[in-house]
Parts: sequence; C-alpha cells; structure tokens
Amino acid sequence: MAFYQKLVHHNKKISRLEHLEAICGWDQASMMPEGGNSARSEALAELAVVKHELSTAPHLTEWFKQAEGEQLDTEEVTSLHEMKRSWQQANVLPADLVEKKSLACSKCEHAWRSQRERNDWQGFSQNLKEVVELTRQEAQIRAEATGLSRYDALLDLYEPGMTTSELDELFTEVKSWLPELIQQIMERQSQDITIQPVGPFPVEQQENLSRSLMTKLGFDFNHGRLDKSVHPFCGGVPTDVRITTRYDEADFTSALMGVIHETGHARYEQGLPEKWAGLPVGKARSMGIHESQSLFFEMQLSRSELFIDILAPLAAEIFQRADDPALSADNLTLLNTRVKPGYIRVDADEATYPAHVILRYEIERDLVEGKIEVEDIPELWDKKMSEYLGLSTKGNFSDGCMQDIHWTFGAFGYFPSYTLGAMYAAQFMAAINKEMNVDNLVRERNLQPIFNWLDRHVWKRASTASTDQILIDSTGERLNAKYFKQHLEQRYLK
Amino acid sequence: MAFYQKLVHHNKKISRLEHLEAICGWDQASMMPEGGNSARSEALAELAVVKHELSTAPHLTEWFKQAEGEQLDTEEVTSLHEMKRSWQQANVLPADLVEKKSLACSKCEHAWRSQRERNDWQGFSQNLKEVVELTRQEAQIRAEATGLSRYDALLDLYEPGMTTSELDELFTEVKSWLPELIQQIMERQSQDITIQPVGPFPVEQQENLSRSLMTKLGFDFNHGRLDKSVHPFCGGVPTDVRITTRYDEADFTSALMGVIHETGHARYEQGLPEKWAGLPVGKARSMGIHESQSLFFEMQLSRSELFIDILAPLAAEIFQRADDPALSADNLTLLNTRVKPGYIRVDADEATYPAHVILRYEIERDLVEGKIEVEDIPELWDKKMSEYLGLSTKGNFSDGCMQDIHWTFGAFGYFPSYTLGAMYAAQFMAAINKEMNVDNLVRERNLQPIFNWLDRHVWKRASTASTDQILIDSTGERLNAKYFKQHLEQRYLK
Repeated sequence: MAFYQKLVHHNKKISRLEHLEAICGWDQASMMPEGGNSARSEALAELAVVKHELSTAPHLTEWFKQAEGEQLDTEEVTSLHEMKRSWQQANVLPADLVEKKSLACSKCEHAWRSQRERNDWQGFSQNLKEVVELTRQEAQIRAEATGLSRYDALLDLYEPGMTTSELDELFTEVKSWLPELIQQIMERQSQDITIQPVGPFPVEQQENLSRSLMTKLGFDFNHGRLDKSVHPFCGGVPTDVRITTRYDEADFTSALMGVIHETGHARYEQGLPEKWAGLPVGKARSMGIHESQSLFFEMQLSRSELFIDILAPLAAEIFQRADDPALSADNLTLLNTRVKPGYIRVDADEATYPAHVILRYEIERDLVEGKIEVEDIPELWDKKMSEYLGLSTKGNFSDGCMQDIHWTFGAFGYFPSYTLGAMYAAQFMAAINKEMNVDNLVRERNLQPIFNWLDRHVWKRASTASTDQILIDSTGERLNAKYFKQHLEQRYLK
Repeated sequence: MAFYQKLVHHNKKISRLEHLEAICGWDQASMMPEGGNSARSEALAELAVVKHELSTAPHLTEWFKQAEGEQLDTEEVTSLHEMKRSWQQANVLPADLVEKKSLACSKCEHAWRSQRERNDWQGFSQNLKEVVELTRQEAQIRAEATGLSRYDALLDLYEPGMTTSELDELFTEVKSWLPELIQQIMERQSQDITIQPVGPFPVEQQENLSRSLMTKLGFDFNHGRLDKSVHPFCGGVPTDVRITTRYDEADFTSALMGVIHETGHARYEQGLPEKWAGLPVGKARSMGIHESQSLFFEMQLSRSELFIDILAPLAAEIFQRADDPALSADNLTLLNTRVKPGYIRVDADEATYPAHVILRYEIERDLVEGKIEVEDIPELWDKKMSEYLGLSTKGNFSDGCMQDIHWTFGAFGYFPSYTLGAMYAAQFMAAINKEMNVDNLVRERNLQPIFNWLDRHVWKRASTASTDQILIDSTGERLNAKYFKQHLEQRYLK
C-alpha cells in the first residue's frame, strides 16, 4: 500500500476512536448519573492514552517522508499537508512537558472554581503563574518548530494562519470606533420601552420551540439530537451531532438563542464533506470559522427584526400566549438587541463583546511573549475595561480577570476566535447579500439559498483551503472589520 | 513491577475500553438517530480491533508464566486464574477462523431477518450450515484446549463449569414432570375469570411506575438510568448501569415486568465488588447466574401475589384508575401467572419456558457434536414441541426453528442459561426462606434483608468462586431442579 494510503487508514483509525470519545463525552455531560463520573473519567483518560500512542507512533516519521515522495493529486497533497500539520502539533512537545502542563492546569482549574467565588486573586495567581510558565515553554517549542512567534504558534492551534500582526491591525481598527459606537447605541436605546416576559415558560414547551426553530434552520435530526446539559455545547460527530442547552423557566430567550447558536455549529459539522470524513482535511477549518457559523445563525440571522417576525408568533403559539405583549415581535426584537456594557463576557451583547475579547487578547499576547507578568493582569484589566467599556474592576477579580475558565487550562490563543467569528460572519452575510436579497428570503421563509451558500463556501470546504483562501473565494477579499462595523451600524443605528 | 500487577493493569486497561464500548453500544440502541449508525458501527469495530490487539498481545504468554511463579495470596491466585481463563478464551482461536465465523454470522443474521418473515427455511438453512460448520471447528479447538467435550467447551463460555452430563440429568428430571405439571396448571386455571386492562396507559405514567418500582427494588439511580429501546436490555457498566424497556400504551404489564427483570440484572452489576472492578474476577459469574438475578426479581419476587398487592395500588394510583377492576391485585395476579403453551419462547410463561429451552439445548448439543445435521432440525423441533408442549410446528419455520436470533450469530451453548437461571433463582429463594420469612418481609414492604442476602451470597462474590461453590455456600447444595419444581407447584397448584 502507498504510504499516503497508510496515513489515511491511520488517521481514520484515530478518528473512529475520537468518535467514541465524543459520544462518551456528550453522555458524561448530558446523560450520565453523578456516580458514574469517576469510572468514566478513567475510561476516557485511557482512550486518550491509546490515541496518543497512535498519534505519536514512531513509524509515522518515515511514513510522512515516504508519502511526500509519492505521486499525489492536488487534493491528496492538501490532505497530506493537513495530516502532517495535525501530527506535528501532537508530536512537537516532549511528553514530560505535556504531563506537567496537564497537571498544572487540572490543579489551577479545580482551585479556580472556589477561588473565583472567594475573589481570591492571591491564591489563583500562584497557580496561574505555573500554567503561564509552562505555556511559555510550550509556545517556545512550538515557535521553534513552526518559525512563528511564540504567541502566534499558540494562535495557530485554534486559528491556523492568523498572526499577531493581523490581529493587532484588525483590533486596533475596532478599538478606534467601538467605544463611541457603543455610546451612540446606548443613547439611541435609552428611549426604548421594553416589556420583560414573565414566566413560567414550561421546559417541554421551550423544547418544542427549540426543535421547531432547529427544523426551520435545517438541523438534520437524522444526524443529530438536542438534549440538556449544565453548559450548552455542540458535540458528537458529523454523522451524529449532539447539541445541548439548559432551560430557565423564567426566561425562554436564553435557551432559545443558545440553541440557535449551537445549531450554527451543528450545521457546519453536519455539512462537512463526506468524502474527507475521518481525515484532518475534512474537519472544520478553525475555531474562528466555527464560531462564525454559530454567530451567523444567532446574530446575523436570528436576532434580525425580520427573523424575529417569524420567531415571535411561533413562541406565542407554543406558549399559548397569543395576547402577551411581551411576546410581540417588536418587543422581542428590542429585548434581543439590547446593548449594555457589563463585566461578564459570556453575558455580553454583540456590540460590547469584542471589547471583552480584545482586552483578553492584548493581555494574553503580552503574557505569552513575556512582556508582562501574571501580577500585572488585574491593573491592566481594570485599565482596559475602563477604557473600552467605561467599567472599573478594581478589587473585583471574580467579575474581572478571574471570570473565564480558558486560562486556567492553558488555552492561550483561543479568545480571538470569538471576535474573528463575529467578523467572518458579518463578511459572509455581506457577500451573500450581494448574491441575493436576504431580507426578502427571510420574509418568504425561504432560508435554503442562504444555507446553500454557506454549504458551498464554508461547510463543504472544511480544511481543504486556508482560512484566507476560503474568505477570498467566498467574499472576494481577506478578512477585515468593515463588514462587522456596517452590521452593527445597520442593526443598531439605522 | 510484579507480573501479576502488570496483568492487573493490562486487564483494567481493557476494561476501561469496554466501558466506552458499553456506553456507545447503549447509545446506539437507545439514543442514536438512524443516520449515525454506519459511522458508529465502524467506530465500535475499530475499538474491537484495539481491544483484540490488547487481549492477544504476544508478551502476555510470558507475563502469565512469570505471574504463576510469583508469591500470591489466595485471592490473587483466583484473580490470576480468571484473567488467564479470559485470556485463553480470547486467544485459542486462529484469527482466520474468527474472521470467517464473524462473516458467516453477519450474513446469516442479516438474511434471517427477512427469511424468517418469508418462512424461508431453505434459504436460511444454507447460511446456518456454514455457521454450524464453523462453530464445530471452533468447538473442536476449544475442546482440545480445555479437555472438555465439544459442546461443553462452548457451554463453558457462558456457564463455566457446567457440563452436558449435568444438564442432561437436570433437564431429564424436568422433562419427567413438566408436561404433566403444565396440564394440571391449565386445568386449574381454566376456571379463572380475568379482566384485560384497557389502555391507553400513557408512556409518561408507565415510566413513573417503572421508576417507582425500580426504587422499591433498590436500583441505584446515582449509578444508572432507565431509557427506551426497541429490544429491552441491561447495559452500561457497574458504576453506571443502563437498563432499557419499550412501552406499549395498550398493555402496561409487559414494560413493567421487563423493567423489573432488567432491574434484577442491574442490581447484580451495581452490587459487584468495587475491590475487583475492571478485572475478570470482579465480573458476573455466568450468564445463568445473571439470569437468576433477573428471574429472582421478576418471577420469584414480583409475580408473587404478595408483591402484586404492593404493585397494584401503585399502578392504580399512577394511572388514576382507583376503581378499575382490571387493576385490582387479584386480577393482576391472575394475569401475571397465566400459563399457556405457545410457539414463541420469548412470550412464554415461567412454567412452559423450560420446555422451549430444553428443546433447543437437545438440538444444539447434538448439532455441535455432529450427531445431527441442520436438515434434521425442523422435524426434531416439531417432534419435541409436540411432546413437551403439545404443539406442532410442521411447516411453520418462522414460529418454530427460525424464531431465535442466537444460532444465527453462532451463540451455541447459550440457551441453557435461561432455565439454569430459573433454577438458581428458585434455589436461592428457598435458601433465603430458611433464614427469613420472605412473605412477611414483602408484607412489611421490607425487602432489604432479601437484597442483603443476594448481595452477600451472589453479587459480592462475582467470579471469586465457581458457580458450584457459590451455590453450595449459599444454599448448602449443588444446583438441582427440586426447588424450581416446588416453586411452580406452590405458585400454580397450591
């Protein structure tokens, strides 16, 4: 057998084990009784060992070398490139560093849960220092292997091809108009009168509404499910995507918007090309592109006035509240487009969200590059929050630099994905609008042409092209912040 | 590390992978959308390969040899013995025979689904011949490795220690009184007037009733779940046992008795000793002992008049039918102890069930030993059905020798477990009654002492002793059919 084919078989084998990992992980979060946790964690850890052995098998070095000398067509070359990228990422770190970081992260994350509640920055920062130190070592090794800067080498794990210099440019531009834009929106909205819907909204009805919306948004229930979990996520495998949500009987919009968000992730997974199933080239391109799909569904599509015109009567019908003014389309639109600076990223609206991300990016970039130290974080956090959102976090670590889980498990380089996703989504929507009239399609309840565009330009391309190439092919230009700004202005200041 | 400890680690590793297999298998049957099936089957097949590689790793031969020379305590000797037994069973067959049999069984089982519908014995028997031929080869190899006869070597896979000569003795005795006993019961019951409950019994209420009964029967919901599937089963792992049922809105007793049956299996699994978790010695002793626990819960306990006195008012309350005479304890007792010979094993009552099993045992034993051929089956089936149950199956293959799935996938030697289970269960109950008054305990709704007995004498012993030893230690004698006969006479002829 040709070595390229051997590598294909090997990668599919790993992918099949990842299938079992994904389903058992989903089960752990959504089905498993508490008492099953310890044995489950051990079982999943064992599978991780098996996977690691496969990913780092010594003969792969030779296989890649041989495969690179074989006659391959263009697609196979790309596929081989992606296999090698994923192999190198898994093999570049020495085993003892992987283990040390894993232990330090477990310790940091575990302690963080109670330290955050106690606002205990002193305790937390001790653990975080260890995580940062090991992350710097990791970044150094990855930088040497890739020729990238240290932070860029981490960024590359989540957003291949993205660089600090591009991010600096994008985010500097956003910072130049965002604070003022937020002020303008808030002034504009200060006159709005909204009615808060009053629960209870029974879980069963919320589930019906969720499924109904998922169906309208093209979720394929023959290849996926909706269930409940404490933290909503999109898991499973492309042939069987498992999304979850949590229901609050006092407020149906949080679960609903969550479900729509996860449906965006799910459609990307369900739409990945079957031809490349089980291979790195057949996987989602990046975390930012993944987020662009969830934000396209949630922000671009579903929080628009015209879509809420569809959603509102459906909600009123399912909750049997035909005459509830709180469930009118106008009121739900106002509620779902409220802009208000706050301390907490996960509660932020789409206008203030980028400020939270840029702040984290600037801090983690300098932290990884060694320009600042863990001790500097609280002051920088307070300064940037004041500057970007007009809020001080002095002394309030819990709602400041201790609010996120990401750094506790060493995921430096991840945060930019959120705002890159928002920008990609806006740029995709602008491009779609050049080809068709999205407003009219939504009015006609005919979303299929929009999904077809995403399927062709994003989902089916998977990792067969770089993010840049996907953007250029689909929108005619590289990523820029212009369309995101236009989107915000159109939605909030028109 | 000592070689015994190395073997312990190795077996726990395999067990952790079996954990993932069990959960993903449960998911496949109870949660997975249809479209996920093909990728799931591939993923599970891949895990089977990984498990097989581990189970047959060449170094294990040396490890066992070394471990057998080590200083071990009595418990470790037993544990080592069980590890070796399980290793030998996995290693004795040549890979090409395993593959051939697996292919022949897949083909036979797949075709059987439609052949049974069409009553196509000619088509089916062609495939079955291949399965039987390969099973004979398997039996021959296992016989040589164990020193047992060919059929006994297969029996040993499901019921270690059980032999044809013991089965012949047990079953000959049962045959000597069963047909007449069935006649007597039918005469006795011919005067009974029963009222068939009329549905609908909503699924949600049936679920509530099931969970309520499971709780009374001590099912630990912190280590398990109840869900739905087409074919009810008990799966998962001891720390997280997944039982399933199917609901028929026209008849609530079938799901309910099914749930009670699976609860018996589940309590055995949940009760296995933590100390030996993940090792062969910590697993259930045999299929027959497993079945004895489900039949103890279903037949011995729950179909008794006194237990139905608990069950009936609970059902009446949950279904809100306080005055429905069909749900009276008396009527439900009559319905749940109805005896009537029929063609189909899975629909049989506890009195006629052994006839179905003995018939299959006699045929499969002679088939494996080469005393009869596949062509002889229909005539033998008809003859034995007429003799044992007074029913002819001439020309009716679908409801005769083509009704079961077991032979299609080559599981020869499994059928006896069902009736061994019924006998073990009766013998256990008789022994318990020597120590306590079960009727009084049921009347007092105090089942705990009964469960404690099972926990001590069966669940916690797992595979630390032979079946014979477990029987002798718990009941004072080896398995015999006397208690099963007494049970039937007491319940049906008193």
